[in-house]
Amino acid sequence: MQFPSKLIEDAVNAFATLPGIGKKTALRLVMHLLQQEPVGTKNLSEAILKMRTEIKFCKTCHNVSDEDICSICTNSYRDKSVVCVVENFRDIIAIENTRHYNGLYHVLEGLISPMDGIGPEQLNIQSLLKRVEEGTVKEIIMALNPTIDGDTTIFYLSKMLSKHELKITSIARGIAFGGELEYVDEITLARSIQSRLPYENYLSK
Amino acid sequence: MQFPSKLIEDAVNAFATLPGIGKKTALRLVMHLLQQEPVGTKNLSEAILKMRTEIKFCKTCHNVSDEDICSICTNSYRDKSVVCVVENFRDIIAIENTRHYNGLYHVLEGLISPMDGIGPEQLNIQSLLKRVEEGTVKEIIMALNPTIDGDTTIFYLSKMLSKHELKITSIARGIAFGGELEYVDEITLARSIQSRLPYENYLSK
Repeated sequence: MQFPSKLIEDAVNAFATLPGIGKKTALRLVMHLLQQEPVGTKNLSEAILKMRTEIKFCKTCHNVSDEDICSICTNSYRDKSVVCVVENFRDIIAIENTRHYNGLYHVLEGLISPMDGIGPEQLNIQSLLKRVEEGTVKEIIMALNPTIDGDTTIFYLSKMLSKHELKITSIARGIAFGGELEYVDEITLARSIQSRLPYENYLSK
Repeated sequence: MQFPSKLIEDAVNAFATLPGIGKKTALRLVMHLLQQEPVGTKNLSEAILKMRTEIKFCKTCHNVSDEDICSICTNSYRDKSVVCVVENFRDIIAIENTRHYNGLYHVLEGLISPMDGIGPEQLNIQSLLKRVEEGTVKEIIMALNPTIDGDTTIFYLSKMLSKHELKITSIARGIAFGGELEYVDEITLARSIQSRLPYENYLSK
């Protein structure tokens, strides 16, 4: 693709480095910015630069934060005996939006993945063990994606945590609300049968 | 959606102002920027700001340009007797990429659209008439989208240009290369029959 201007070309190439944005979409975004007032572009430019340079990661749970310790860890109303282990901060946003969890979090920043060469030492696992050793944590909830990498990570973590007196749980896996049995894959269906619940429990959830 | 950080929220909201990008996609883009080195975000931030503040519009054809007159208008190898009228500079990029056009352009920056309240006076039509009055232009090619607005604009322009001795043409409309007759809409098919070509002409194109 040839561009009439080096400025346009640079902006298109910069947008096209983002995931899911190819050159044509990038050009559409640039067109849009050109059609709007310059202040809109200024806002976008400043917001992303400020976000990237000033963002902090909570020293306790590695969540993104404006301060050294995030607002969830400093919130005195939250249950400090439960820690929910997640892959990244997007999962925290998803769980927070349910408004059904009141404990703390721990962001691993990835999953163990031998295929991608990611080992336990590249993840925030040492800091999790440290938090557990302090003694206030009574339950660890594994809220990791139900993939091979997720299961590998849960297996590794539960091994590492086994010497502590802890309740280790995982978020329930089964048929999604509104899902139809006939379209569910075999592994999910098999697991949901194996981990069936008494009818009363089912109703209360 | 609740965000763990004001910085993240601002960046997500800024991305979400772009067309085709909702809050969830915006969050994915922000996540991506956070996972990459800060220099990537800095590049993107600077490229779009520089593009928006330093971009110029060619004083002759209104194409985007790094200079006061764009590289197409100043190119002495191009045929100055033919002017191709387009809606926006993206169409110029599309036509240039075909490498089958060697004339000049004129960017209207929109189409006449009574529904959207866009009249001829909001488009770059006066400057087109001025170019024609200078006398070097012998042919005007209308390369506008085959929509009602496009046809309205072509009709208006041809009226305005009728007092000049000019050849006014439109890009051919018909069945796209590789298209299948049975799936083509009726208007396109009807037009392609009405504007049928002698077989020899067809082969040479």
